[in-house]
Amino acid sequence: MSILLLHSRRDLQEFKQLLQEKLPNTPLYLLPEVTHPEKITYAISWKHPHGLFADFKNLKVIASFGAGVDHILTDPELPKNIEVTKIVNEQLTQDMCDFVLLQCLNSIRQTPLYFRNQQAWNPLPYQTPAATRVGILGLGTLGQAVAKKLYEHGFKVSGWSISKKYMQGITTFAEHELNRMLPNCDILVCLLPLTEDTKGILNQSIFDQLPNASTLINVARGEHLNEDDLKQALSSGQIKAAFLDVFTQEPLPEEHWFWTHPSVFITPHIASITEPTAVVDQLAENYLRFINGEALMHKVNLTKAY
Amino acid sequence: MSILLLHSRRDLQEFKQLLQEKLPNTPLYLLPEVTHPEKITYAISWKHPHGLFADFKNLKVIASFGAGVDHILTDPELPKNIEVTKIVNEQLTQDMCDFVLLQCLNSIRQTPLYFRNQQAWNPLPYQTPAATRVGILGLGTLGQAVAKKLYEHGFKVSGWSISKKYMQGITTFAEHELNRMLPNCDILVCLLPLTEDTKGILNQSIFDQLPNASTLINVARGEHLNEDDLKQALSSGQIKAAFLDVFTQEPLPEEHWFWTHPSVFITPHIASITEPTAVVDQLAENYLRFINGEALMHKVNLTKAY
Repeated sequence: MSILLLHSRRDLQEFKQLLQEKLPNTPLYLLPEVTHPEKITYAISWKHPHGLFADFKNLKVIASFGAGVDHILTDPELPKNIEVTKIVNEQLTQDMCDFVLLQCLNSIRQTPLYFRNQQAWNPLPYQTPAATRVGILGLGTLGQAVAKKLYEHGFKVSGWSISKKYMQGITTFAEHELNRMLPNCDILVCLLPLTEDTKGILNQSIFDQLPNASTLINVARGEHLNEDDLKQALSSGQIKAAFLDVFTQEPLPEEHWFWTHPSVFITPHIASITEPTAVVDQLAENYLRFINGEALMHKVNLTKAY
Repeated sequence: MSILLLHSRRDLQEFKQLLQEKLPNTPLYLLPEVTHPEKITYAISWKHPHGLFADFKNLKVIASFGAGVDHILTDPELPKNIEVTKIVNEQLTQDMCDFVLLQCLNSIRQTPLYFRNQQAWNPLPYQTPAATRVGILGLGTLGQAVAKKLYEHGFKVSGWSISKKYMQGITTFAEHELNRMLPNCDILVCLLPLTEDTKGILNQSIFDQLPNASTLINVARGEHLNEDDLKQALSSGQIKAAFLDVFTQEPLPEEHWFWTHPSVFITPHIASITEPTAVVDQLAENYLRFINGEALMHKVNLTKAY
């Protein structure tokens, strides 16, 4: 009964110490320290090297350090009968709401253009939230919270999800109704989980159904976006501006055309940042549930992949 | 009993037509058309040439086309015993709230830096609204609405005004208590009226009392700001970023140092734009009150100058 901790982007020493205080009798290992992989029953992980877990014969649970689990589920050598959990955290949700609201306001006020081309006095028209229709792809924990936030701020909000959701003040659409939502989205926000079905969903077919000169905000995963189709939609004016926070390759390679496109506004995956130390309580509690044979919190449905 | 209409920045033909429909029996004049200035009793104006009204011997009221009246009150040749009114408009107020919220979010997320220097993957830390203290100078109609909006969004908000105001959830300070508010302002927002007392108020003495690396947002008037003191405060790092929407000279002259300063973020006076046609009802109603001898709405106290 030991836990493996690994993270592609964070030093975990402080996290390990905090977790150890909560689980004083549980051996915790960082990656190079593991000498007996068969003793590891539980992993807490962010972007592990695919194939790594093949040697961990007794691994029962992989807990993601964040809200996304695509980095786990896309590993073709994932052990059979594994359980996967994700983080659901109020601050993480709140941060995402703030960021999407910020980018929607930036879009209707055209502020990024003023900041980028700060060289001439050129007032541009602005839209009010009440006159702006925002469509949200994905109504999971984050999508629902963002939809509510934008609605409370006065935007006209609609949302799409595989299984129909019902939300006060928000027009919702189910799986086969996406084509009914798109013509009414001045701003389209992607908050979908990354699955086989949603990979590349932001493509020409979607863009063509939006109103002319709409705005795209992608805060989900880079793989949701067909980059060539976006280039074409920007060039035709079908999409007026793209606010991108996530990319297929991160850091985004220096030579990528996104960097220099005048209508692409890049943020370096900062919409909502989970610090491992901020979610140590939730991760510890789920481990205690595991060893006590209780149901895990925030368990991922492996068929749906979210 | 005739009305003079003048506006430094808008063509008023459409406005004139709409107003005429509401006041079918009242002669309306645009500036070069006036042959008998003594017949004009009422002016609806935005930035008139100072001295102009000296010839209008029977002028009783000057109605501003917007929320600000400094463009009227700073005219040294203003007729005696004149009444001055301002616009109070829900959409104008809402637009200002949206804009200040947007700039506060831009400040804590550092998004303008990403947009301006879009050339390298360089994630910056962000602050949450709950950890950010915003201080508002001026708690008139706009200041109070902005304070409420930011508070509802989760910011820690305080506000300062000459006469003490009391607001749910907001720490307020009166005239001589400004020095108690400033040390607790990570972001300082100026929403003051422009008067002899507030001219140049954004100066070194204020900046020195703010926490180090604070943000300044000026959405009031350019004359509130001592530009040399701001330059110094930016250079010492006392002020980290300045979001400026208003300027002493507008359009801001091409050669001004604001344009090229890396920590100055300029918008061309677009926080809240009053279209004359959007306030025609309010202006017509006030004129009818005037001819019926009733008290005017939104009358300016000429001693306070707001």
